[in-house]
Amino acid sequence: MSTFSIMATAKAVPDRVVTNDDLAQIMDTSDEWISRRTGIKRRHVVTDETNTSLATNVAKQLLAKTHVSPEAIDFIIVATMSGDQLMPSTAAAVQGQLKAGHALAFDISAACSGFSYGLDVMNALLATHPDSTGILIGSEALSKLIDWHDRTTAVLFGDGAGGLLVTNRSVDAQGQFLSGQLDTYGADGDSLTMGKIANRSPFTDGQAQSDLPLHMDGHRVFDFAIRRVPESIQNAVAQAGLKLSDVDFFILHQANQRIVKSVARKLKLPFDDRFPINIDEYGNTSAASEAILLAELVAAGKVKRGDILVMAGFGGGLTTGTVVIKY
Amino acid sequence: MSTFSIMATAKAVPDRVVTNDDLAQIMDTSDEWISRRTGIKRRHVVTDETNTSLATNVAKQLLAKTHVSPEAIDFIIVATMSGDQLMPSTAAAVQGQLKAGHALAFDISAACSGFSYGLDVMNALLATHPDSTGILIGSEALSKLIDWHDRTTAVLFGDGAGGLLVTNRSVDAQGQFLSGQLDTYGADGDSLTMGKIANRSPFTDGQAQSDLPLHMDGHRVFDFAIRRVPESIQNAVAQAGLKLSDVDFFILHQANQRIVKSVARKLKLPFDDRFPINIDEYGNTSAASEAILLAELVAAGKVKRGDILVMAGFGGGLTTGTVVIKY
Repeated sequence: MSTFSIMATAKAVPDRVVTNDDLAQIMDTSDEWISRRTGIKRRHVVTDETNTSLATNVAKQLLAKTHVSPEAIDFIIVATMSGDQLMPSTAAAVQGQLKAGHALAFDISAACSGFSYGLDVMNALLATHPDSTGILIGSEALSKLIDWHDRTTAVLFGDGAGGLLVTNRSVDAQGQFLSGQLDTYGADGDSLTMGKIANRSPFTDGQAQSDLPLHMDGHRVFDFAIRRVPESIQNAVAQAGLKLSDVDFFILHQANQRIVKSVARKLKLPFDDRFPINIDEYGNTSAASEAILLAELVAAGKVKRGDILVMAGFGGGLTTGTVVIKY
Repeated sequence: MSTFSIMATAKAVPDRVVTNDDLAQIMDTSDEWISRRTGIKRRHVVTDETNTSLATNVAKQLLAKTHVSPEAIDFIIVATMSGDQLMPSTAAAVQGQLKAGHALAFDISAACSGFSYGLDVMNALLATHPDSTGILIGSEALSKLIDWHDRTTAVLFGDGAGGLLVTNRSVDAQGQFLSGQLDTYGADGDSLTMGKIANRSPFTDGQAQSDLPLHMDGHRVFDFAIRRVPESIQNAVAQAGLKLSDVDFFILHQANQRIVKSVARKLKLPFDDRFPINIDEYGNTSAASEAILLAELVAAGKVKRGDILVMAGFGGGLTTGTVVIKY
């Protein structure tokens, strides 16, 4: 347990909205089919925006909201698996755009659990660096890595970014990082893959083919999530010395509304306002989804100081990650 | 400062060796030209190996050398920018291969500084998790992302992996993490880039072109390194409460032998055995290079318990990262 405070949250999503009906124009699907199975009605996709521009937009909002100077930022972590490039990191690009000259910057790759993993890593960095301030962003531009001919996956994902500014400066630190429960199930990694870059160097036979689009064994991932996410949440809440009834909001990665409902049921909790949902508007934005949802809850005045938040990610790796925070 | 112990180090490089003369067969270059400008004579490139297989090889050696059970590993971090895929992370794939079921796993992307960044993050995770054990690996398969028609960059890089197993279990912790000085210069990020994946979704004009190969403004990066790396080292050593004369080995990222010489000169130190070099054998292996060099120094009996090590990375981002360790 350590003391910190989330001073601000923010989100940025692309302007272009693609509805289920829009998708039905370019593939064999329907609003009814998508909505019923996933809860998704719309998603935002990048056109002129990029992963870096979305993440930078979030970071600039965080500075503006808190009046923290860019030079006062110590850490910038971006959780992403869809950066504009492999080098430099998205975090380094954001750092440059912000002119946050004292911040170290790196990306974390843990797929849809990236934001929860990032929270745990940010907590560890803060715990080892007194009086410091960090920006954590989840940002994805998955639409460039989707197979738009595969209706089983293309309808599920969207683009966006969300983030938070967190400090452990004693004057500002009123919240707490209560626990983190991060798990990886690498043996099941082949059920959710993306971005295979082939080796075509002159020292191979040159026959390998890159396979950039996302592939998912939907049933395996669904079964994984509804089994492992409740375990992860229960473990994290117990580690924090709390009961499920102490939790004000279960902010789950928005992969599928049915997964959130199933998790609530497995936790023997009603699927109510404690399980907020915004997948209808954004689809699955991977590492960005928890952060976008948190930013919306804060902006709406629903999440208040002192609230106990469960932030639970799950997905590629396979991975699960639950962090419990006193906001 | 925190207490830990590097229990083992290991490296794995591809079998296939490509000499400068081999390269002279496929591009307009020569052994004399490459050797004089860089110190590189050979490099190892993946054929049947992959980034994941190299990293897994390292991890298995670390477990075998320490007799630590895979189930006793708490963290697996891989620093890489050339993973076999964007999802799952290389670390998750390694975790699955190891059957290290209790380990959380994620990748860090900080380009050639990735291993130093990873050391800092691993230290923070250990500091916040008593009695825990982690594996940190730098692993790269850059040869698949090199433009083999660009003789200014193609001759510089090689593939490989290196890593270490570190614990803060009190019975084993005899070393110390003394300081970390990580810096990012994101505004200069365009001088060293790789892996641009274009947005070709149906919602764009579809004209964007991916540009996977590495591009480098060699002069800018060279000037950056010889200016910023000495600063980084001086800051890190001062933070550790030490003097340069206390340092037993300056284990620098192997990007170019001339950079290492320049750094020594700027530090007003002789370019001698305290600045070990293995770039002649491996070329620039990015996030793997410090780890491969450390593993070789340990295997050769040169680095001993109690030695003060400076681990200094630099490169894409742009980034620098220096960590000072009591081995």
